[in-house]
This record gives sequence, structure tokens and C-alpha cells, in this order.
Amino acid sequence: MSLTMEKLSSLCKKRGFISQSGKLYGGLNGCWDYGHLGVELKQNIKNYWWKKHIRQTDKFHIEQDDLMLGFDGSILTHQKVLKASGHTENFNDIMRDCKDCKARFRVDESKSCPKCKSDNLSEPKAFNLMFKTQVGAIQNEENSEFSYLRPETAQSIFSAYGQIFGTGNIKLPFGVGQIGKAFRNEINPRHYIFRSREFEQMEIEYFCHPEESDEILDKMRDSRLRFYEEIGIPKEKLHILDVPEKERAHYSKKTYDIEYDFPFGRKELEGIAHRGDYDLKQHSLASGKNLEYFDEKTGWKGLPHIIEPSAGVDRILLALLCEAYREEKIENNEKEEIRTYLAFNPKIAPIKIACLPLLKKNANQCEIAKKICQELREKNISSAYYENGAIGKRYRRSDEIGIPYCLTIDFETLGEGENPKDKDTITLRHRDTMKQERIPIEKIGEKILSLIT
Amino acid sequence: MSLTMEKLSSLCKKRGFISQSGKLYGGLNGCWDYGHLGVELKQNIKNYWWKKHIRQTDKFHIEQDDLMLGFDGSILTHQKVLKASGHTENFNDIMRDCKDCKARFRVDESKSCPKCKSDNLSEPKAFNLMFKTQVGAIQNEENSEFSYLRPETAQSIFSAYGQIFGTGNIKLPFGVGQIGKAFRNEINPRHYIFRSREFEQMEIEYFCHPEESDEILDKMRDSRLRFYEEIGIPKEKLHILDVPEKERAHYSKKTYDIEYDFPFGRKELEGIAHRGDYDLKQHSLASGKNLEYFDEKTGWKGLPHIIEPSAGVDRILLALLCEAYREEKIENNEKEEIRTYLAFNPKIAPIKIACLPLLKKNANQCEIAKKICQELREKNISSAYYENGAIGKRYRRSDEIGIPYCLTIDFETLGEGENPKDKDTITLRHRDTMKQERIPIEKIGEKILSLIT
Repeated sequence: MSLTMEKLSSLCKKRGFISQSGKLYGGLNGCWDYGHLGVELKQNIKNYWWKKHIRQTDKFHIEQDDLMLGFDGSILTHQKVLKASGHTENFNDIMRDCKDCKARFRVDESKSCPKCKSDNLSEPKAFNLMFKTQVGAIQNEENSEFSYLRPETAQSIFSAYGQIFGTGNIKLPFGVGQIGKAFRNEINPRHYIFRSREFEQMEIEYFCHPEESDEILDKMRDSRLRFYEEIGIPKEKLHILDVPEKERAHYSKKTYDIEYDFPFGRKELEGIAHRGDYDLKQHSLASGKNLEYFDEKTGWKGLPHIIEPSAGVDRILLALLCEAYREEKIENNEKEEIRTYLAFNPKIAPIKIACLPLLKKNANQCEIAKKICQELREKNISSAYYENGAIGKRYRRSDEIGIPYCLTIDFETLGEGENPKDKDTITLRHRDTMKQERIPIEKIGEKILSLIT
Repeated sequence: MSLTMEKLSSLCKKRGFISQSGKLYGGLNGCWDYGHLGVELKQNIKNYWWKKHIRQTDKFHIEQDDLMLGFDGSILTHQKVLKASGHTENFNDIMRDCKDCKARFRVDESKSCPKCKSDNLSEPKAFNLMFKTQVGAIQNEENSEFSYLRPETAQSIFSAYGQIFGTGNIKLPFGVGQIGKAFRNEINPRHYIFRSREFEQMEIEYFCHPEESDEILDKMRDSRLRFYEEIGIPKEKLHILDVPEKERAHYSKKTYDIEYDFPFGRKELEGIAHRGDYDLKQHSLASGKNLEYFDEKTGWKGLPHIIEPSAGVDRILLALLCEAYREEKIENNEKEEIRTYLAFNPKIAPIKIACLPLLKKNANQCEIAKKICQELREKNISSAYYENGAIGKRYRRSDEIGIPYCLTIDFETLGEGENPKDKDTITLRHRDTMKQERIPIEKIGEKILSLIT
């Protein structure tokens, strides 16, 4: 019962996690819409990252005693920012055109045309991966008014470095963290949402003294590994790749990739790069502004070095889906059947709890279930209310979308059951074990909060 | 002491709320970066909206007993989506070119060239406000592969309507809510962040039976008004405009605008439009898919009508900044001075609390203040720790960025003060009144949580 992307994407489409953008008109390749479950799952990943790094609850930040600043830069990016960063010149794939069928493909993918197999090919040509658009009313021929959609969130932080530094009493080390969309005109988007043209990044640019930078790189790698384990990816599926020099980006002095064993192979979730002073130097040169740091205590003056953990939100979401997917043989009325469920960590599950009356036709049960659901929502807990269908079916449907807990209002709750002492208690069912326990109604809020945080 | 956008934008830049994108290279007109305070403020606005409408804590949803689904569509949009919606044809400003100096300007703004005053002008010409970009590797001359950056989040919901409807046991009325960026190539971005080229929307597309639609429109307007009051905009600064027919968008049967008295005039924060069945009809015609709803109970079959409250996040943020800005004469050591502060509602304040040792050189005070700060962060409360400068200055700085509460660790806390019974208590200072109270350390978390939610 191995998991394929076909199986997963079909579940995700059917249940409202992810579907292709523009599908009504044939689809927009490499662009995805997140449905009601996908958007909550994504938000939970982002909130956990923000809490850990910007609210500084991870022990890395506590030990560093650092300052962490959030940031949210614009997607449209001044062309000079990306000229200074080297993207205009270097952010390319090398392509060939087929002179017979006009197809375009990457040189490293094929030696003859992958479409018509012709060998009648153009010379290799650099193809820039950035999306370009005209900004402003005047379209002149020199294209002086075009901007780019940022190919990484990082550059909006580097180009605002002077502004950020000026807002506070800032000392090294400090970090600037950002969650936001980035765009790359990938020739060949693939592996479902793994490599897409529009994607979301969570990046920290961590500014530090050059002498501390190597140690911080290693500590940051450990901090980021903790993140993955804490949201439910087991250690043995995570791998650290010390990226060999010739495979590193031109700006990188050292890079660790955190990789995950996807069903389609071991692939990168996050890169943690030692960018040295490359970016600040480039922007300093291009803009003519001095971006040097002066340390009053030691008298040291120079450009800070940058450690950058850069994670892909969509990739992490995909890893969590792959990791959570379970098919399990169970017995139901002496027949064997397959239970499909998503074993999300309760911390990141899109819906935390389903509130269910045992019987739809029992108005009292419905009313209590709705009231509890509403009270949980007031606490900002994502809660669903389901009344249609047999209770077993509703459990199965909740399992399939990864709801970790179901609570059921039955006759015992109403004081009409066999155990009078169970009045005002509900049944709490745990998704993974399918075990049930009774708890008092007044304890639900507290209990659920303790289970999901 | 009236507030101007110059004064506000200068404070916002200096303190890390908002700065212009690409400023290092002269700036990108109409695009803004949010700094560490701006990003938290924006997030709090969005989270409150999400809680109210997607978690359904507003009484509108409780009374409607509806289903609310979150959504997050891609920014890159299939060209056929925007052809069907009418944007390709109708989303235009009418422009003239100056034949002398080549300037381009809006016809409704000026009769002669606003730059060189020439009357030698081209005929009026439609200028489409959508940003266009080439997607995919092959640039052919028919431009068949270009896509748009969505000019509104709405269309990504309409074009995914069939997909969304298929994910659940969905009955009318139900709503789909989305928060995300949209882009318009405004000829003349203005009023600071009020009209920009890259902006964020919070939209609900609320699908209902045609007969209920007028009543729902009015109830939705009231629900949205409550939102603004709850986040701190007083009723008397909010106005409902019943938009006259000739000023409404072509798809709208009726529209209410919620307007706010900005320092630069009364302007729209949000439009609540009755879109009728316009959008589903257009997408149904263009795609050939039947999007009709069938009501099993009544036998009614037809396209649902749509009520759409569409709010601008950046505009709301600007209104909150304008509303919060205060200059107040106070006496300090018998001298009169001006206290500038931002009186944000604690619910949406970017930083909720500053934890302060009375004296930086007292290691015990610092340690306790840091520990409390860390405990609050564990509860995901945005908390700052400041130790540099006299306590009065730190209060003033906290006021200026709108932190509603300061807690100070002093000698009383350590049991070294005049009142032994004040051991293990701290001073809680309230920003607006500057009043102080002592509370026990163990009550802080609970107290702050109750003040900010």
C-alpha cells in the first residue's frame, strides 16, 4: 500500500486540501489553490514557525539572547535589487530549442528533443527564471519600467537592511524573518506541489559577526531540525546534506540541506546557507550606501555575515501529507476493510475537533454539540459540526481529513443513558487509536487546548 | 495638532511599521514593505477577521447557521479566468498621451498635459490595469502563454466554485473566505498606503438563494460594521454609502461602501456588493460547465446569488494608525512636553507587552523580566524586553509604538523595597491612562490574555 502522488493528490482534491489553479479552463501549470483544509494546514505550519523563531520560543534564540524581527516585503521588486543580487545575470536554466517542433527543454534533461526526438537543436541558451512585468503607465522600448516578481523572499530583506537596522537599538546577532510568496518560471514544474511556479517561503536572514558565523550555522541547522520533528516528521526520514562546493549557489560559503524521504525520492525541504557578506556587499556596491556595522565595544567595523535558513512551506506541507497518510486494515462487523486516515500531529491538523450529535433527529444532542462547537471556536480552535449520516461514517470521514479528536453527544450526556453519573459528559474519540474516553463538558476547552498546543 | 500623512509615514518608517519597497534604489512606486511592527499589526487584523468569519464567531454566522470555508488561491491567474470575468475587456482607466513630452495621464484628471501643459494630446485610449507576465518557457508571438497577477482575490474563488462545491456536503447559504494579495497597475498610487499597486484583500464570497440575498446583504453590512468597531474604529467615523447605480461596477445589483474619515477625506475601506449571479453565469458560459445548484427540499434549481464583502487590509491598517495616533500635552518635571503615542486596541496592537527591569545594572531584575517575557512568548503573546535607558524613556518609547502594557520589575518585586508584601509582584502600567497597578507575578499570563482577547 505504497503512497503515490496520484493517490495523494486525488484525496487532496476530493477533500479540499489542494487543487490546480484555473482547472476550469484547463489549468495553470505549476500553480495551486489551497482549499479549506489546505489553507488551515498551511497556516498552522506558518504560525508554528513564527512562534518558534519570531516569538523566539526555540532554545536557539533563548541561548543566543538575540533580537528577532518580523518582515513582510512586497512581491513586486525593483529591477535594481535583482541586478545587484546577481539574479538578472545568474538565475538561469540552460535551454535548447528544437528547430523542428519548436519545443524548449533543459540541456541537462535530454540530448535530443524530448517531444519529437529530433537532433536538429539550437545552441544552448540561458533562460532567466524570473517573472517580469510592466509597472506604471508608460511602456517604453528600453523596458526601463519593468519589475520582477521576487524569486526569493530574501532579497527584500537585504535591500531593506539599512531601513531595518535604523528602526531600533540593534546589535549583532539579530535576525529578520519573513513568510511570503516567491515566483519562479520553472521550465518543468513537477512532483505535485513540490516544484511549482508560485510558492511560499519561510526565511530568516540572521546577521552575525563573521567569527561567530560558523557556529551559528550549525546551531541553526539543529534548531531547524527540531522544527521538523516537532511538527511530526520522524528523525529517521530527515537527512542533512553538506552540499559539496560545486553544487552550492555562487554566494554560499557552506550550505546544509535538510532533506526528506518523499515517495518520489530524497528531496530538499530547506537549505541553510552561509551567505557570508555577499548580499550586503553587493547592495552596498550597487547603491553606494555604506552598510557596515560598527561594534562600539570591540571597535570592530565590517559587514555582518548572514546565515539563512530558507524553507519551502508547500514542500513541508507535502511532506506532512505524505507522512500522515495511513491505510490500515480493520474489522468492521466481521468484515475486513481499509481505514484511510491522515495522522497529522494535533498541533498542525487543519481541523482540531469534530462535534457530533449521536443522532441528528435528537434536537437536544444537536443543540449541545453546536454549543460546544461554538465555544471552541470562540477560543479560536478550528472546530467542525457534523450531523449527517451514521456516527461510524462521520468518524471515518473525520479520520480521512485528519481531525485528531471527535466528541460525541449521546444519551448519557443528556442523563438518559444507562449510567446516571455520565450526565454532562461526552465521548472523546482519538483518531489514531480509535479509543474513547468520557470527559465532563466543562473540561473540554482546557483538555483540547492542552492536546493541540 | 492635526495628523498628516507626512507625519504618520515618518513615524511609521522610523519605528518599523512601513517603508517604501526598493527605497535603496529610489523606490518602487505603489509598493510597500512592512517592518516588524507593521507585519504584526497586519497579522492581527487578518487573524481577527479570520476568527470572526471563518471560525464564525460573529453573530451573523451563528444566526445563519452557515458553513464557512477558507481558501487561498494562486496569485498567477489563467488568462481565461479574467476574460470570462470581464476584466480583460473592462478593467481599464481611460488615458491620453502627450505628443510633446510623452507623458501618460488619466482623462478624468486633467484636460491638458499635467507635466508640460501641452494641448497636443492623443485620442483617449483604454489602459488595462492588470499586470501581465509570461508563464512557461516558450515565448510565442500570439502571447498565448501569458497570465495575469490577479486584480482581485474574488475570481480565484469563482473559478474554483465547482471544485469547492464538490468537496463537501454543501448547502446554501455558505461562504468562502480568502485573505491574499492582489495587484493593480494604478496610474497614480496615492495617499500613502491607501491606494497602492500591491495590496492585500480579505474577501468573502457568500453564496445564497436569490430570494434571501437582499436580506443577507444588509445583515452582512451590519456584521462588517461590527468588525470595525471591535478593532477600535469609532462608529461616528464610519459611514455607509449606498452606491448610486451609475457608480457601481457593471456586475453589481447593489453596493454598500463602508467609508472612514481619513485625514485626507472620507474614503472606502470596504465594498459590500450584491454580485447577483453575474460571476457564476460568466464562468458557466465561458467554460461550458453547469454550475447550477439543485435544492432537494424545494426543487429549486438555479445559480446561487453572491454577496461579497471585500475589505482592503492595508487601508484598514492605515485607518487604525490614523485612529490610534495621539499627541498629548503632559507635565514632566514641571516642564510641558508632548507625549506621542499610538492608542491601538490591545486586540490588534503589534506588541502586547514590554517587560522591563527598573535598572539594567540589577541582574536579578533583568533575569526576572526576561523570564516573564519568555513565558509570555510561550503563550504566543508578542512581548518585548527592553533594558537600555531610564525607565521613563522606555515607557515613552513603548507608548510611541502602541504597546498597551508595560510591566516593570523593581526592588519591591525582589522583596528589597519598602513594602515587604509587594514581594513577587510587578508594576503593570497602562499606556493610555499611564496608571499603574501592582499584580502578582503568577497572575500575569492570565491577566494579559484577558486584556488582549
